[in-house]
Amino acid sequence: MSAVYLEIIKEDSRTRARLGKLHTPHGIVDTPVFMPVGTQATVKTMTPEEVWDGGARIILSNTYHLFLRPGPELIRAAGGLHKFMHWNGAILTDSGGFQVFSLGDLRKIREEGVEFRSHLDGSLRFLSPEIATEVQMALGSDIVMAFDECAPYPASYAYVKDSLQRTTRWAKRCRDTLTTTDHQSLFGIVQGGVYEDLRRESAQAITDLDLPGYAVGGLSVGEPKEVMYEVLDYTVPLLPRERPRYLMGVGSPDALIEGVMRGIDMFDCVLPTRIARNGTAMTRFGKVVIRNAEHASDFSPIDPTCDCYACRHYSRAYIRHLLKAEEILGLRLMTIHNLRFLQNMMQEIRTAIAEERLPEYRRQFFASYGYEQ
Amino acid sequence: MSAVYLEIIKEDSRTRARLGKLHTPHGIVDTPVFMPVGTQATVKTMTPEEVWDGGARIILSNTYHLFLRPGPELIRAAGGLHKFMHWNGAILTDSGGFQVFSLGDLRKIREEGVEFRSHLDGSLRFLSPEIATEVQMALGSDIVMAFDECAPYPASYAYVKDSLQRTTRWAKRCRDTLTTTDHQSLFGIVQGGVYEDLRRESAQAITDLDLPGYAVGGLSVGEPKEVMYEVLDYTVPLLPRERPRYLMGVGSPDALIEGVMRGIDMFDCVLPTRIARNGTAMTRFGKVVIRNAEHASDFSPIDPTCDCYACRHYSRAYIRHLLKAEEILGLRLMTIHNLRFLQNMMQEIRTAIAEERLPEYRRQFFASYGYEQ
Repeated sequence: MSAVYLEIIKEDSRTRARLGKLHTPHGIVDTPVFMPVGTQATVKTMTPEEVWDGGARIILSNTYHLFLRPGPELIRAAGGLHKFMHWNGAILTDSGGFQVFSLGDLRKIREEGVEFRSHLDGSLRFLSPEIATEVQMALGSDIVMAFDECAPYPASYAYVKDSLQRTTRWAKRCRDTLTTTDHQSLFGIVQGGVYEDLRRESAQAITDLDLPGYAVGGLSVGEPKEVMYEVLDYTVPLLPRERPRYLMGVGSPDALIEGVMRGIDMFDCVLPTRIARNGTAMTRFGKVVIRNAEHASDFSPIDPTCDCYACRHYSRAYIRHLLKAEEILGLRLMTIHNLRFLQNMMQEIRTAIAEERLPEYRRQFFASYGYEQ
Repeated sequence: MSAVYLEIIKEDSRTRARLGKLHTPHGIVDTPVFMPVGTQATVKTMTPEEVWDGGARIILSNTYHLFLRPGPELIRAAGGLHKFMHWNGAILTDSGGFQVFSLGDLRKIREEGVEFRSHLDGSLRFLSPEIATEVQMALGSDIVMAFDECAPYPASYAYVKDSLQRTTRWAKRCRDTLTTTDHQSLFGIVQGGVYEDLRRESAQAITDLDLPGYAVGGLSVGEPKEVMYEVLDYTVPLLPRERPRYLMGVGSPDALIEGVMRGIDMFDCVLPTRIARNGTAMTRFGKVVIRNAEHASDFSPIDPTCDCYACRHYSRAYIRHLLKAEEILGLRLMTIHNLRFLQNMMQEIRTAIAEERLPEYRRQFFASYGYEQ
């Protein structure tokens, strides 16, 4: 058995949702789960204790950023990423592929790997399946993502086909590089854009590698949400039931619920932490732009139904003051709230699955949040 | 008896140092005390719980900044500054005088008060003894500072004499304005620059007002430290023994010790929090510039003898990484450390007074810190 594996507790009778426990070398994670993003070995503005107290048991960190700064050898010398950043929960690291491909003109793709210019200093750098895997071995993350190409949207059939086949060849090279499978588990990534037969081809090839888990990549990159849901509808059933399934880069409340209903176990996204720092709170009553003047003398909390530290002790008026005055505590309180909101929401989703009322929960949530149905 | 008063526990036999308890409507504060600065209703980067856990029981906040943003009426409507910012310890507010006078060409001094332009939007504003006191009444601080002029250094004898006499007239107007003496206590400020007879004149006039406490103002504004110590040598004995004495704007370790030995009970300064955010740690072994490359792979804590959260869980290498990557957690950890360092140091000073070994403590501290003796 791999170091990371999914224990399925319950499968929903009316949807594809599953309730599970993801076993990792750094603890057990209830699924479906949202993973906060700690790009540069820190979840922005937060201590690890605050992330933990908010309910998170697994976070994501970015290989691309840590590769450039402070560098994998420093983190290896520190005893690995967990110790370096003082986080004793589980860590999933991405492969750097997404960031590198996002660099556009600053990168060149070859079969061997990708040459790119650092966004920090313009220096020429190189990432390959081997290097991306070795970096993640230095980091010591519990879940290692395969180095893939996340094709843009829109992209031609021919481009996506070439790209996914390269991603498959790269996934094999990642698998052959990872020698630390006693405590690190490789997840493969299914690509194929919005083309059903290419998703089928990719899923077949990637699952043939018999990896501990699988991600659906190449979504939430600009396509309409209905298209994303359609891709999930035909792609997720191609993945083996007993392995964890991870939808990359998705963290909006509606997409979390829709993803869970389509059989996804894991999600990550910078959205909640990023919009927090821009002054927007997620609540069960929809988004609240705390920066807006309407909250200037509103002494109620961000969300009176929320149990987070920010909502227990501070008013919208105070948090707005901090944001306007560019005080760091404002960014902290907003981040604490948004992360707690998503953790509470995932807990509600898990409870709804356990109690066989996920579709009803979805309806209620969307009515309160203000989505059109 | 005033709402704030000093209980003297012990007076040192060899120096002017006193050990005391400052009683306030928001708790008892051991003195000598260093007060962290929460300029805009927040100690930068920190939650109130973190400030409290660091050992602080009283903080300072700035009338000038809160007057401009979010405005005293908003804070009054919130139930006062303590409630607005979720700090249940004591609060001292300055009068805004120092900030207004620092504006240079942007302000005009008249007997009535000071007209100035807001640093935020350039709008024309006005502060007077009455307004500064009324603002502090809206804030509800435990200790209200009189609206004074902090004369620059150097300044002519004639300028300083005029200025201190105006400060005395203003102090009377502050006293006559403050009607909330059941829970707010006015401290007067002795000015007089570096002229002994002017300090004597100011101390006589201000202490004649029989106020709950007195500050020594107009120091730490550019004069050599020896000059500051000399002014304290002849000014502090002019203040009544039984009232708390506050040296404004002083927070470097050497000046804290020297001030305590000259009979000062209270200090404040932005120094520890400001240099923290610039990447400099205060330790008992001297300043450590964590940003420097020499700490890039140093996995020891900022100070192995420190008990703060940052030193218990993080390495210099990690904190340096956070600072280089411009991550907020880096600013937080540095601030937590520097504030804890000063609170620990003040505790050591209090213990040294109690045990009749303050001069010995001073020698040992300076030898470790690296000061020339």
